[in-house]
Amino acid sequence: MKNRHRLSEFVEPYRVDKGKNFKLKDHDPGDTGGLSEEFKPTAIDLLQKSVHQLADFQDKLYAQDRWALLLIFQAMDAAGKDSTIKHVMSGINPQGCQVYSFKSPSTEELDHDFLWRSVSRVPERGRIGIFNRSYYEEVLVVRVHRNLLEAQHLPDELISKKIWQQRFEDINAYERYLTRNGVVIRKFFLNVSKAEQKKRFLARLDDPHKNWKFSEADLRERDCWKEYQDAYEDMIQNTATKHAPWFVVPADNKWFTRLVVGSVVADTLAGLNLKYPAVDAAKRKQLAEVRANLVEEK
Amino acid sequence: MKNRHRLSEFVEPYRVDKGKNFKLKDHDPGDTGGLSEEFKPTAIDLLQKSVHQLADFQDKLYAQDRWALLLIFQAMDAAGKDSTIKHVMSGINPQGCQVYSFKSPSTEELDHDFLWRSVSRVPERGRIGIFNRSYYEEVLVVRVHRNLLEAQHLPDELISKKIWQQRFEDINAYERYLTRNGVVIRKFFLNVSKAEQKKRFLARLDDPHKNWKFSEADLRERDCWKEYQDAYEDMIQNTATKHAPWFVVPADNKWFTRLVVGSVVADTLAGLNLKYPAVDAAKRKQLAEVRANLVEEK
Repeated sequence: MKNRHRLSEFVEPYRVDKGKNFKLKDHDPGDTGGLSEEFKPTAIDLLQKSVHQLADFQDKLYAQDRWALLLIFQAMDAAGKDSTIKHVMSGINPQGCQVYSFKSPSTEELDHDFLWRSVSRVPERGRIGIFNRSYYEEVLVVRVHRNLLEAQHLPDELISKKIWQQRFEDINAYERYLTRNGVVIRKFFLNVSKAEQKKRFLARLDDPHKNWKFSEADLRERDCWKEYQDAYEDMIQNTATKHAPWFVVPADNKWFTRLVVGSVVADTLAGLNLKYPAVDAAKRKQLAEVRANLVEEK
Repeated sequence: MKNRHRLSEFVEPYRVDKGKNFKLKDHDPGDTGGLSEEFKPTAIDLLQKSVHQLADFQDKLYAQDRWALLLIFQAMDAAGKDSTIKHVMSGINPQGCQVYSFKSPSTEELDHDFLWRSVSRVPERGRIGIFNRSYYEEVLVVRVHRNLLEAQHLPDELISKKIWQQRFEDINAYERYLTRNGVVIRKFFLNVSKAEQKKRFLARLDDPHKNWKFSEADLRERDCWKEYQDAYEDMIQNTATKHAPWFVVPADNKWFTRLVVGSVVADTLAGLNLKYPAVDAAKRKQLAEVRANLVEEK
């Protein structure tokens, strides 16, 4: 329990559960929680331990079959979403974990309400679901590139200035509903700086093994940096709630990003008081009989 | 337009869009809107006309590809849900219409949040979706039979006295969201009397061709008549809204039930101002060229 207290304290500065006064500029992408670069090996070691802890929690989550955990990742390109998911979640049983990477919507998906393609992927009880991008794209890329909103074929009467506010409200209501139904939600914004993104793009261009990760579209999105930062800020201001908080995770140092995300997940699962389902006396007696019969089997 | 005005007026007495003071006892299942039994042939004729009108509306709905229509049917057994859907919707193009009959949830469905199995079936733009039973069962049968709530595997902490109120709130928020995204919702409670249900059950028992429609489970549900009526009343009080109204349709006379439902659907579609997509001058010119080339083809 003491350990848990330390975890909660460690992640507290990155937690936003009341959005009203949130300003992105108050959050430094290079922040490492006062830990120097020399702490890096220790951090990697700690992450390793927390992965083991996660695997243990997940086993109980699965056995108990009551709660589900939904982790949502949003960020600019090269902020480290994929690698964070890989490093934090590797080691847990894939049977109890589903990752969905949301790409450009299909024609069928565009013909539906905007939550449609996500809601069918919400994890079932006992599972961890990870959204690599999510319905939050509907108030990010769709807001920055207005033509994407037009592609959604909404009746003209329903497109007004209030549409982003309405989407925030609808998302909040949906997340409140999920929470009431046993789906615990944690949302991560990996906060990378424009300078660090440039470095990582250059690395992708210079290293043949990383070339596949680079697309020219990423550069065009970089041109809209300011519009995206505004959209992220407004999104967090309007959708950070007690039941579904955002974590604004410094993302210029990958080892620190992973440490924070791993700690949030471990802290969240620790808070659920997970236990293997109890077996009562009658059931134990029954199991003993079954066992005896099995042993005597010829 | 005049015709539309008459339709709206005709269905007005059955429309509930402010639930607060709704009492089921104020609604007579035997009501025929002042029309005598002699009007029956005329009613059937009118329904036939409205089916043609529906088919025409649906064609435009499909071509325009902006709005979707969701019709929800709830009722006690033998109230006539299946036959109403059959008679009102036959004649429209099945390509633009999907009917889902929700039965007892599967194990997979039970392991998800309670809206999960319905939301993936919400109609896409340009379509009419019909829910024969729906997520409203979650505040009806699940409320009357408490063991069904237990089968949903919710964490104990989340099951409180407020759960039905929370479900109403979550359903309202979800329907508001759908409405904002172009899904027009109309909900029908087919209001049959206990005496009429008895008659129809006896008919099912006496007529070999109707035997398949009878199950003993229906009788057990009949034993809970009072609990169901209370649950329906509370449901309508809490979920009748301007954007997603309930229609409490008298269901002791099938010809009248169908006339009301058909009129509501026609009135709703008439209100959407559906049009075939306009073709502008440039596009017309282009089509003329294509036509000329096609004619000259050797």
